[in-house]
Amino acid sequence: MKDLLGREEALKVDEALDLLLHQDIKQPEIESIFIEGVYGRVLSEDIISPENLPGFNRSTMDGYAVNSADTFGASDTMPVYLEVKGQVLMGEDPGISMQRGETVRIPTGGMLPGGADSVVMFEYTNIIDDKMVEIMKTVSPNENVILADEDVKKGEVVLKRGQRLRPQDIGALAGLGILEVKVFSRPVVAIIGTGDEVVPPDKPLSAGEVRDINSYNLAGLILALNAVPVKKGIIKDDFDRLLSVVEESVTESDMVLITGGSSVGTKDYTSRVIDKLGSPGVLFHGIAMKPGKPLIGGIVKGVPVFGLPGHPAAITVSFETFVEPLVMKMSGEKHCPHIPLRRTFKALFSRNLSSSIGREEHVRVSVEKRNGALWAVPILGKSGLVSTLVKADGIVIVPMNKSGVYEGEEVEVRLFK
Amino acid sequence: MKDLLGREEALKVDEALDLLLHQDIKQPEIESIFIEGVYGRVLSEDIISPENLPGFNRSTMDGYAVNSADTFGASDTMPVYLEVKGQVLMGEDPGISMQRGETVRIPTGGMLPGGADSVVMFEYTNIIDDKMVEIMKTVSPNENVILADEDVKKGEVVLKRGQRLRPQDIGALAGLGILEVKVFSRPVVAIIGTGDEVVPPDKPLSAGEVRDINSYNLAGLILALNAVPVKKGIIKDDFDRLLSVVEESVTESDMVLITGGSSVGTKDYTSRVIDKLGSPGVLFHGIAMKPGKPLIGGIVKGVPVFGLPGHPAAITVSFETFVEPLVMKMSGEKHCPHIPLRRTFKALFSRNLSSSIGREEHVRVSVEKRNGALWAVPILGKSGLVSTLVKADGIVIVPMNKSGVYEGEEVEVRLFK
Repeated sequence: MKDLLGREEALKVDEALDLLLHQDIKQPEIESIFIEGVYGRVLSEDIISPENLPGFNRSTMDGYAVNSADTFGASDTMPVYLEVKGQVLMGEDPGISMQRGETVRIPTGGMLPGGADSVVMFEYTNIIDDKMVEIMKTVSPNENVILADEDVKKGEVVLKRGQRLRPQDIGALAGLGILEVKVFSRPVVAIIGTGDEVVPPDKPLSAGEVRDINSYNLAGLILALNAVPVKKGIIKDDFDRLLSVVEESVTESDMVLITGGSSVGTKDYTSRVIDKLGSPGVLFHGIAMKPGKPLIGGIVKGVPVFGLPGHPAAITVSFETFVEPLVMKMSGEKHCPHIPLRRTFKALFSRNLSSSIGREEHVRVSVEKRNGALWAVPILGKSGLVSTLVKADGIVIVPMNKSGVYEGEEVEVRLFK
Repeated sequence: MKDLLGREEALKVDEALDLLLHQDIKQPEIESIFIEGVYGRVLSEDIISPENLPGFNRSTMDGYAVNSADTFGASDTMPVYLEVKGQVLMGEDPGISMQRGETVRIPTGGMLPGGADSVVMFEYTNIIDDKMVEIMKTVSPNENVILADEDVKKGEVVLKRGQRLRPQDIGALAGLGILEVKVFSRPVVAIIGTGDEVVPPDKPLSAGEVRDINSYNLAGLILALNAVPVKKGIIKDDFDRLLSVVEESVTESDMVLITGGSSVGTKDYTSRVIDKLGSPGVLFHGIAMKPGKPLIGGIVKGVPVFGLPGHPAAITVSFETFVEPLVMKMSGEKHCPHIPLRRTFKALFSRNLSSSIGREEHVRVSVEKRNGALWAVPILGKSGLVSTLVKADGIVIVPMNKSGVYEGEEVEVRLFK
């Protein structure tokens, strides 16, 4: 189906994303790392506990270790009396086995002696003398005790392949004595700038030149995903040069982003380079999205290669919509689809804004509080202006079947990272 | 005011946090870093633009640069004819000044020649011959043009002191040729483990010993805030040793976290050490919160020192409730209070759960999808179990004036980082 100007109709966002996510894509590699450096990394193996945690019956209170049967019926007015056989020291085997009618003083975290199945808190005891304590409370079996395998059982799957490790997960690894784990390597994403007018920011500018904004924006977007950006520099409009840099990048990296190429020449070069380097080559060229319409997506030897539009706002929107889900997939993370990956919240739209039916519009907004309500205020301005992104807090997406947003309508704001 | 057992009444969460946030706290230091490494750092200076961006009038389309007055009335059926004076090359000064009735071919991103104020897209033109083009559309002044100072004006404050830099902010710095900026140093947080039973995870365990879970959990929590954890090791229950390590840590770091200390001795040591090292010393000991009740908070020479309860869940809850806001304050970030710092979302609570009036309860929950709705399922279990944190996705807070949560009640889930 062609549009009025004879061009291929732009793909819908979800169609294009689906197309990308169902390609054969290079599998992430696996590396072994120490738990000190594992925060935010994705496990490539299930972690099975080699032992019970805590490994011994442990008191959760300061008090007296007892056989709970000895406390049956004990109360303020009807205490029972137990013989004190000694005390448990922290971090040591008590080396005592209690008989009925006996008790041992125990600190929080101490190891229960043999014969004890529960702990009475100090608050419910009275010391009579060196050898005798009064117990004023009935305790149940296992009361104030963590059992030897209550936290983690030997052989239990504690953490699963595909989990992104959080602080507590690393704590659990340390608790089990697991010092090194296998994780997926972080995706390496090559950034290639193009455009005869684009110069590195440390070079003096001549008339008609602009400094490279996009590579820096992209490097940050990649870092925010816990991936590794590699800047390949800025390539002037030259087919062979672009071909060789993309070819090199496809070998070295897990994904390649070609930015800019706002000139007619480079636009053609990007899709020709992708097609020339391998099948399936270009998957789509043009998306029913604003900004970001001229996006090119393709695969070369299992490596996704994107031709990103040159405008800063189009870069950010294309990245968040297409590159991010693909980087997430390559990270090996099995992400739970109903748990949000980003900070989002509801706000009221601050004005009427029309949007074209048939394309998904990503509106930059700042967030303001007025009369106790949050308002999403659209930052209008050309997508070529980096300042509109700088002034925005996030994005409101107007779906392709909606003709706009009304003032006061509730919208969801996705904050930038 | 004392409670029934004669203990000081525990402080409310917001009172304790308020107390901490209003202390004189060590100011963060300032360092100068290159923009390559600035993602996620907090600016310590306003960034004022040294120049206009893009710096020249720039075309946003491929087409013909025109004087808009020459196109008045032009349409499909009534084209106007302009003389082609040449073409603009990308990244170069066109070196042409147009007269009325003249036009110049221009690529997207090209520099407008003198005498041109707008661009007509190729789609609305027809080439007649080398010297003549037909224009079929009326354009307004500045149409399809970014003015020299339209993105950023010289002297404008582009980014503000206290902003945490996002990808697009770094792009803007690159665009302005600002390669190095001043940022606040990342807060350095010392972690001191205590407890005679706690051993580093690489040491073989004896009976009654447990491996250090808390330092690893805390290191991850600190990294997630873009701060720097420094592990000071595990101190056995010894007042003088703890005193000297805390004293050293107060000198070297911006904050000190003493973990564990579940034994009676260490509990006392922590507050005695804080009081001995400097005024105001201990600010509170005990919070109306579950888990995390035995939290100790104090200040030594402008450095916040916390005595964190030894249970893993209490560590996480105390950290998120008290340490995190203080680390955020020390980071220098001026955070907009109405923009959420965390990923949160609404869910339905999966069961009736009672909670004590008078203390704020932080319930660990996992999130499940059933019949199209999200449910927050409480992970019940002792706060001493790290596995309850590992199985949880986040926290639901039951406020202190609520006696519980009903099955099906809507709650807000705060996801772990």
